[in-house]
Amino acid sequence: MAVQTVASATPTVDLGPAAALSCRECGHRVPLGPVFACEECFGPLEIAYDFSAYDAEELRQRIEAGPANIWRYAPLLPVPADVADKPNLNPGWTKLVDARNLARELGVTGGLYVKDDSGNPTHSFKDRVVAQALEAARAFGFTTLSCSSTGNLAGAVGAAAARAGFRSCVFIPHDLEQGKVVMAAVYGGELVGIQGNYDDVNRFCSELIGDPAGEGWGFVNVNLRPYYAEGSKTLAYEVCEQLGWRLPDQIVVPIASGSQLTKIDKGLRELVELGLVEDRPYKIFGAQALGCSPVSTAFKAGHDVVRPQKPDTIAKSLAIGNPADGPYVLDIARRTGGAVEDVTDAEIVDAIKLLARTEGIFAETAGGVTVGVTRKLIEAGVLDPTLTTVVLNTGDGLKTLDAVAGTGLTATIRPNLESFREAGLA
Amino acid sequence: MAVQTVASATPTVDLGPAAALSCRECGHRVPLGPVFACEECFGPLEIAYDFSAYDAEELRQRIEAGPANIWRYAPLLPVPADVADKPNLNPGWTKLVDARNLARELGVTGGLYVKDDSGNPTHSFKDRVVAQALEAARAFGFTTLSCSSTGNLAGAVGAAAARAGFRSCVFIPHDLEQGKVVMAAVYGGELVGIQGNYDDVNRFCSELIGDPAGEGWGFVNVNLRPYYAEGSKTLAYEVCEQLGWRLPDQIVVPIASGSQLTKIDKGLRELVELGLVEDRPYKIFGAQALGCSPVSTAFKAGHDVVRPQKPDTIAKSLAIGNPADGPYVLDIARRTGGAVEDVTDAEIVDAIKLLARTEGIFAETAGGVTVGVTRKLIEAGVLDPTLTTVVLNTGDGLKTLDAVAGTGLTATIRPNLESFREAGLA
Repeated sequence: MAVQTVASATPTVDLGPAAALSCRECGHRVPLGPVFACEECFGPLEIAYDFSAYDAEELRQRIEAGPANIWRYAPLLPVPADVADKPNLNPGWTKLVDARNLARELGVTGGLYVKDDSGNPTHSFKDRVVAQALEAARAFGFTTLSCSSTGNLAGAVGAAAARAGFRSCVFIPHDLEQGKVVMAAVYGGELVGIQGNYDDVNRFCSELIGDPAGEGWGFVNVNLRPYYAEGSKTLAYEVCEQLGWRLPDQIVVPIASGSQLTKIDKGLRELVELGLVEDRPYKIFGAQALGCSPVSTAFKAGHDVVRPQKPDTIAKSLAIGNPADGPYVLDIARRTGGAVEDVTDAEIVDAIKLLARTEGIFAETAGGVTVGVTRKLIEAGVLDPTLTTVVLNTGDGLKTLDAVAGTGLTATIRPNLESFREAGLA
Repeated sequence: MAVQTVASATPTVDLGPAAALSCRECGHRVPLGPVFACEECFGPLEIAYDFSAYDAEELRQRIEAGPANIWRYAPLLPVPADVADKPNLNPGWTKLVDARNLARELGVTGGLYVKDDSGNPTHSFKDRVVAQALEAARAFGFTTLSCSSTGNLAGAVGAAAARAGFRSCVFIPHDLEQGKVVMAAVYGGELVGIQGNYDDVNRFCSELIGDPAGEGWGFVNVNLRPYYAEGSKTLAYEVCEQLGWRLPDQIVVPIASGSQLTKIDKGLRELVELGLVEDRPYKIFGAQALGCSPVSTAFKAGHDVVRPQKPDTIAKSLAIGNPADGPYVLDIARRTGGAVEDVTDAEIVDAIKLLARTEGIFAETAGGVTVGVTRKLIEAGVLDPTLTTVVLNTGDGLKTLDAVAGTGLTATIRPNLESFREAGLA
């Protein structure tokens, strides 16, 4: 008995301020571990923190003196205090671009900023979440880092595992485009093609987690999901600190599973509760592609539940037809006074080109979705152009070149001045 | 007469500490302007600075309090003091990765660091040099930013011009691969295909500069070359500051025109002269692909002149057969006790995979060249593994996917555990 008491009073898992896992539905708490569903109600588990020891001014100074990556926020994340000394890709602290040209084109006068996560090590926001999952994997003694993926996540896991000295094993549909296979394979881990579609891949991964063969495996977005998901909070922290410790008035976030949007809301509320920013209203807007718009459809219809869709859009990184966090996204958009909107594939391409032409930022299709939705919401009078607005770009255009394949030469000439003049270029 | 005196005493061009242009061959000085060749001897012009007012400790503090991009070094660059307030891509301050896994594989015990310039806005070091050229273009009243290019430079110029509100006109061979055309075209400037090869493109650009049609045009790597080239100094500054204001013992730099290597040497010497780092010996090593190795060939043969070659290598971003700064590179390698070495295309691919597998960094072919040369020089006993060594990665693997196209799935299985076990993955 005495041994049991000591064991429960001395947790073997050091994940900094993370105190327990808590069910988002029923509030049931369990100790930190590689679990993701509530044993009582099957609701999703998330991290519960103990921030009680923090003084606002001391915390702000500690953050500002920290490294130029997500670990400056280690006191607010489920990671050990010495996380910055462990080998990882050190993502984050990406540029918040003051997008004055884009603001002018869209008629925004209150300040328009693009949070550009293409600056992360593997050029997508996935590096943030994988870095959290990696620390949880270390804490739980896992030796293999794994995931199912069709794109950005595969590269983020492969790269993070390589640097951290983990084995990696990534599962993808066997018939993925060759370019995406190369991007995932170059880091040298196991890359396994599954004969089936993405649903088959996911079903197989769930089976593997429940089997002895999966022992020691950390699936970043399955059994490590509560830790993984917290990484998106860093987007909220960085935006506020880069605005001078101020909440944005409006923020436009892409929706895939919806997890990122819910964690950005969580991060903003934490900063208020910790006294790091002044409490004032903010609105969160969700952005989807029309070809995979289950959440915007539900929002517009006034529904509380999200009806699954079969995705058909060029925004592959957002193409989750049955988004797990969809109902939470609806709650947040309605509670904050935001909205959820969608754009067509043609509008996505237009928005990619608009952002590139005005700010020199070449975004992935997901960035086309947020910029396109921003434009649409301004034109509809839903976004207030006189308020400070932040738009997320979560990925890199080099990974979705096909989307803008129609872009090309503006002229072809012979190598002489006569031909140059004939083309009207002088 | 009085008017003339006032005019010469009040320079209209404010480029900070840049005082004049000075010929690298004969030392002849001319005022700052869009010229690149000495009117006396046709030697290359470079920037002469007036750093006389700086106090070392004050300067160091000013730099450390500066922004997390190249403009922290504005006091040492040909840019106005308020450069950080002008619209540009704010490149630089990229990660210096402590590459412990790679060091272990290569047997380096003195510290091995990868300076990873794939973290720049358009994912190559070219953002650094283009940012300098842009400020010169502003100072000289140019309205069009231009270049000839076959790759990284085209994107860097297009993006920088878009953000700064310049017109851009980039010239490329008309038959470039579609992917590279898209990467350059997406920023919305003029992208002109020239019916001819890269030499024809360059010849045409020189013709255009001499013609009234080229008035108001800043060719970043031709008439703005003295300013442009200085951008590479920031690599030296950042490496030293990130090492804790210390010179590296050994640094491995890729060679295309050779300009980058000469400017890194210039940057390191400036830090010594300014008292920002302790004076101690450093060695600079140049890296080429065997398929375009005019400088390493001359180095090994003990020649002072560089004989042009016809390039044939996968390292396209280094494929300059007649490198303008080749003789200076030879001087520097010999003076510092370094060397110039080359690797085969197969060694480049191996090195790209080695860096990805050990550090999670996916490098362009140019990064494969520097990592491959580092390995070769260690094995040959030329690089000392007990000394602090820095290796540059100047670009991103996403831009040269073809080089590692052979990388792929490590297994293909059916979506069940039996198939998983049969594949030996358990």
